[in-house]
Amino acid sequence: MIQTADAPTVAKLWDMIRSVKVAMLTSDDGAHLRARPMVAAQDSFDGTLFFFTRAHAPKVHEVTEADRVCVSYADPEKQNYVSLSGTATVHQDKSLVKAHWSEIMRTWFPKGVDDPDIAIMTVTVDQAEYWDAPSSTMVHAFGYVKAVVTGRSPHPGENAKVSLA
Amino acid sequence: MIQTADAPTVAKLWDMIRSVKVAMLTSDDGAHLRARPMVAAQDSFDGTLFFFTRAHAPKVHEVTEADRVCVSYADPEKQNYVSLSGTATVHQDKSLVKAHWSEIMRTWFPKGVDDPDIAIMTVTVDQAEYWDAPSSTMVHAFGYVKAVVTGRSPHPGENAKVSLA
Repeated sequence: MIQTADAPTVAKLWDMIRSVKVAMLTSDDGAHLRARPMVAAQDSFDGTLFFFTRAHAPKVHEVTEADRVCVSYADPEKQNYVSLSGTATVHQDKSLVKAHWSEIMRTWFPKGVDDPDIAIMTVTVDQAEYWDAPSSTMVHAFGYVKAVVTGRSPHPGENAKVSLA
Repeated sequence: MIQTADAPTVAKLWDMIRSVKVAMLTSDDGAHLRARPMVAAQDSFDGTLFFFTRAHAPKVHEVTEADRVCVSYADPEKQNYVSLSGTATVHQDKSLVKAHWSEIMRTWFPKGVDDPDIAIMTVTVDQAEYWDAPSSTMVHAFGYVKAVVTGRSPHPGENAKVSLA
């Protein structure tokens, strides 16, 4: 049974993302699936994640070759887990860089927004699953986070499958 | 510069794995890269991870079609992150099931080791990277965890690349 995400679900996902903060972003380098820690640079979430990166970082090369990625958030203590599947795109346009810039980024980009190697990697999420604390074995799966409601609410203990609305 | 892992490094990885406990295991379902929480069932680590699963779970089907997986461990509070890349294989042989069984598993497999649907998914790790607390931007990457020492120690702040020894 596949669900599309309603507004409270997207809000719930954002809540879990914000609370865990550091994601592991998994990409395919051709030989291996590899993950690295990354923090999204945004104040809200409507289905797209924004990460600062160096334009010449290996992960940028990887997603240019194979754009499918998985962004996962895990908090074993609270038993909150999120898996977001989507496609990654790298942007160097300065208006996007400026829109997501905050002073903390200077740690990694001391030259600021004008650093020629600064870039934004967006992940457009088209499938999400989460497991939350009240029922750690429960899985919610959702198609297209931005989509409208089509079905009943996810059912505790049920494994929901995803399709495009 | 690619390193092969020495014994202290494998011990360090196992330390981080044990301390985080819950992994996100990312596999490729053909359409998406997807992750789900999993706990390794073992008391030591020599380059292979062991996970209990149902033999008919979707993830088992996925890794039969595409066996490359990434197992990541994240502890944002301590700033410890591990990415383990390898290949997954599913085993139903009872001696392996018994060797990794503990009573806590009865929560998921109330019928115990004789459950006809019980299986072990092994992940043979051939590449590992970790980022640890003293230097959260540091990356250590290692080829073939079981291999012998071939090179110098990973250098803080340096990004090490991996190849087969």
